[in-house]
Amino acid sequence: MDDEYIRERKRLIAEDRSLRVDALALAQATDAEKRAEEIVRRVRAEENDTVWGPDAPPIPGSMHVFPGMGFLTARDTILKTKLFEVVSKMPKGALLHAHLDAMVDARVLLRSALKYPAMHVRTAEKLTLANLRATLPEFRPLPENEWTSFESLVDDAYEPGTWVPLTSARETFGFGGPDAFDDWVVAALTINPSESYVTHNTVDKIWKTFGTTFAVGRGMSRYFPIYEDYLREFFRSSIEGGISYIESRMPLWYRYMIGPDGQENIPHREWMLAYDRAIKEVKEEFAQQGRGDEFLGSKVIYCTLRIATCEELDWYLEDCIALKQEFPHLICGFDLVGHEDPLKPLIYYIDPLKRFVQRQKEVGVHIPFIFHAGETLGDGTPADMNLYDAILLGTKRIGHGFSLVKHPRIMEICREREIAVEVCPISNEILRYTGSMPMHPLPILMNQGVHVALSSDDPAMFGNLGLSFDFFQVLVASEVTGLITLREISRDSLTYSCLDLEDKARALALHGQRWSKLIEWIISKFSGHLKA
Amino acid sequence: MDDEYIRERKRLIAEDRSLRVDALALAQATDAEKRAEEIVRRVRAEENDTVWGPDAPPIPGSMHVFPGMGFLTARDTILKTKLFEVVSKMPKGALLHAHLDAMVDARVLLRSALKYPAMHVRTAEKLTLANLRATLPEFRPLPENEWTSFESLVDDAYEPGTWVPLTSARETFGFGGPDAFDDWVVAALTINPSESYVTHNTVDKIWKTFGTTFAVGRGMSRYFPIYEDYLREFFRSSIEGGISYIESRMPLWYRYMIGPDGQENIPHREWMLAYDRAIKEVKEEFAQQGRGDEFLGSKVIYCTLRIATCEELDWYLEDCIALKQEFPHLICGFDLVGHEDPLKPLIYYIDPLKRFVQRQKEVGVHIPFIFHAGETLGDGTPADMNLYDAILLGTKRIGHGFSLVKHPRIMEICREREIAVEVCPISNEILRYTGSMPMHPLPILMNQGVHVALSSDDPAMFGNLGLSFDFFQVLVASEVTGLITLREISRDSLTYSCLDLEDKARALALHGQRWSKLIEWIISKFSGHLKA
Repeated sequence: MDDEYIRERKRLIAEDRSLRVDALALAQATDAEKRAEEIVRRVRAEENDTVWGPDAPPIPGSMHVFPGMGFLTARDTILKTKLFEVVSKMPKGALLHAHLDAMVDARVLLRSALKYPAMHVRTAEKLTLANLRATLPEFRPLPENEWTSFESLVDDAYEPGTWVPLTSARETFGFGGPDAFDDWVVAALTINPSESYVTHNTVDKIWKTFGTTFAVGRGMSRYFPIYEDYLREFFRSSIEGGISYIESRMPLWYRYMIGPDGQENIPHREWMLAYDRAIKEVKEEFAQQGRGDEFLGSKVIYCTLRIATCEELDWYLEDCIALKQEFPHLICGFDLVGHEDPLKPLIYYIDPLKRFVQRQKEVGVHIPFIFHAGETLGDGTPADMNLYDAILLGTKRIGHGFSLVKHPRIMEICREREIAVEVCPISNEILRYTGSMPMHPLPILMNQGVHVALSSDDPAMFGNLGLSFDFFQVLVASEVTGLITLREISRDSLTYSCLDLEDKARALALHGQRWSKLIEWIISKFSGHLKA
Repeated sequence: MDDEYIRERKRLIAEDRSLRVDALALAQATDAEKRAEEIVRRVRAEENDTVWGPDAPPIPGSMHVFPGMGFLTARDTILKTKLFEVVSKMPKGALLHAHLDAMVDARVLLRSALKYPAMHVRTAEKLTLANLRATLPEFRPLPENEWTSFESLVDDAYEPGTWVPLTSARETFGFGGPDAFDDWVVAALTINPSESYVTHNTVDKIWKTFGTTFAVGRGMSRYFPIYEDYLREFFRSSIEGGISYIESRMPLWYRYMIGPDGQENIPHREWMLAYDRAIKEVKEEFAQQGRGDEFLGSKVIYCTLRIATCEELDWYLEDCIALKQEFPHLICGFDLVGHEDPLKPLIYYIDPLKRFVQRQKEVGVHIPFIFHAGETLGDGTPADMNLYDAILLGTKRIGHGFSLVKHPRIMEICREREIAVEVCPISNEILRYTGSMPMHPLPILMNQGVHVALSSDDPAMFGNLGLSFDFFQVLVASEVTGLITLREISRDSLTYSCLDLEDKARALALHGQRWSKLIEWIISKFSGHLKA
């Protein structure tokens, strides 16, 4: 083969990849980085055969095994891989797309609820073995004068709709005892493979199931004492997964949480105070362990729902401004959430949203929009068109932007204005926007030079707590993406966060230190092993 | 909402869509075209509810009904829609990506085979009700001295591997008689929904099934008398579907077809002579019906397989040049075919392919490459990298280019050099490159301003004969794409064909005339209906 052709080919490939955010990093990589990069590529190639290849051991629940296959069936296998061990050790930077009511493991949430005698549970129908899977538990903390002394959800006397104390409902659960109760609750709080991949295998259908998992969970997480436990648990588990900073999308469409007394009486400012307390407590905890540098804190993106009327939205926007004035260090953005396809598009809210921008100027605060937009399979549908309005409204980042790859001018604007996209690969796959990782449009965005921050979206429902699973699925499904690419993505999550300049510089410096340690660890752990 | 915002929004949308091939046509549409466009959009919107909506009647074999759903289960329902009636009437322009051994309905092929007493059939195992679906028929025309007098594939005396005359095998078929025989053969020649969507639901697996359908079919279509019937049938059915010109990918890796005498003795030049004859006969047939303008003829893209060695490829390339010299009007391109992921990449063949270009200069012929490239879910894999080599080798068009959307520079080159992409939406979906039409990357290519020609690829196996089904699936899955978009796509198939300038001008003029008639028909047929 002539050298001239090979040179021309290299030139073309370099041109094609010149917009990528890892282009410079790859060119400037140190020898150690190159070595670690090569090791990771070899680990991946090896496991693509031994774990995900056609002759690999079968995976229960899936007829088809391949790298980047459906996460819900692949999860247990992923946990056993060397590649996951590597990814788990990575410093992830920031978690920028995370719905606060979907961030704590279902079993941990239930365990937290069991601590509180106010917590009760009921069902709308009498439970039988036959309807168990289809019947959802409903949770609620009751005021003490309404606490009941019913013992069981499942005895003959149980009247559907009657509240039973959570602990005794669990102790007396008839279909296998407390463990079966836990399984039943966890099933109602999570999406399982047969829902996502069989019975509800369309975006519209799986969103319905997805909605019920939130409804069930909120019965517990809206109880203020649980919320406080929840925040600490969320921060702790994130830090353990290598996340050093978080921007939570907080569901503020409820005006009150339920207080320790069982009444709906905890207003938004109390939520913020508790958020601040939790950050402080967890920071102190980690500082005491000599790990103070691992957590730089967290901010809140104020969220309400895409079902609000314009008048209702006005209330939320004023509320958001008031919270920003009281908690300027905490409130960092505003967003509208919910399934984009059927719910109201951004264009519907243009007037209040424009007023919001004006009001901020009057009041002297700055709350950037950080909109969900284009989380859709539609082409030219209102949900897809949300991307135009997000851009015109000056969004700081784009949440999901699944359909962004269809829009050359918007991608160009994202590059020009450095609007990063919060890409949630596992969420997209479980909610059926993509059949599997190899079909996911992330490589298109990357090659167009759009900055992305990988995010877990709703890991309590999906099982992708931390960010390691999302990084893993991305790494395993592309031969272009390697360790250095993941470094750039994780750095970008800090660069495009709402941290102020000083904190951002510190965060990036700490990330760099942790990255160097990772490189050393990879080389010492795997190089010998792979030579064999 | 303020007018300024609306104006800005329109400007942004127009910018975003300015590269699209339909941008000018939409701006210049006549009133009649606009009316027809609006009618088609209303028919689509109506049927998206009544036929494909959540409350629409169920579709057997699919739990999930939506516009652009899996073709194999949707096909019967598509046939009943008004939108399909519209699309069926469309002049389609050229069919540019069509594997010649996959272009005739399976039942028609079998009927053709039944005319020839030389045709025999056998199975490798004794057929039982239990193994019927899994056991494939093997067909072969035998020389007269080897014709057998065995009567049945299924009587007790049948010895697996023994040839039985086709007609008597069919007459005596034991699992329901001749109809059951036909069903059995058709099943072996086509891909069924449960293979594509359940048991073989990955690219690798479905390609294996796909391969066996070709192997079974070739037992019949390699018989020269059947081949001659086949060509006429292919041309006739294409014309009936609104196709006016065809570039067939001819499978020339076999050096001989089997002649009327049952011997492998029909060389490539005879295939070409027969191809010429079939064009002539069908042209005359249609001219006699006063439909001479509907068919402008057909050319051949010489194809061999991506399994050849470089030495073998040299032979084919010389053969291709010799055929071009003898049939300059017929041979219009060269391609390598087969599943790109596991087979040899273009880079492997650089030396012979470069020599081929040199040899053409010496001999004074021009045979453009028209390469399959990027028919893969891989990112940076050899199949994905084929796109670079296709471009560097100067490909005239790209076959499939499924992964092209990942390559900004290559898309730019396609725009600059007017390299059109032969997009095969239904093939991509059945072969599991995309979960369904709404996930297909076609809108990305369109918005990047890459010219596309919709193609059916292997309709005998997929059931998408003609081009109406492919146009339908594209139209139903996008709110941006409308009738005028489809007009541009169909015109592009002529513009980027290998027709010479004069024929191309004539083809485009005839297309324009037919399009005007379509617009009239749509308005007269549907406008009143939709007003009601």
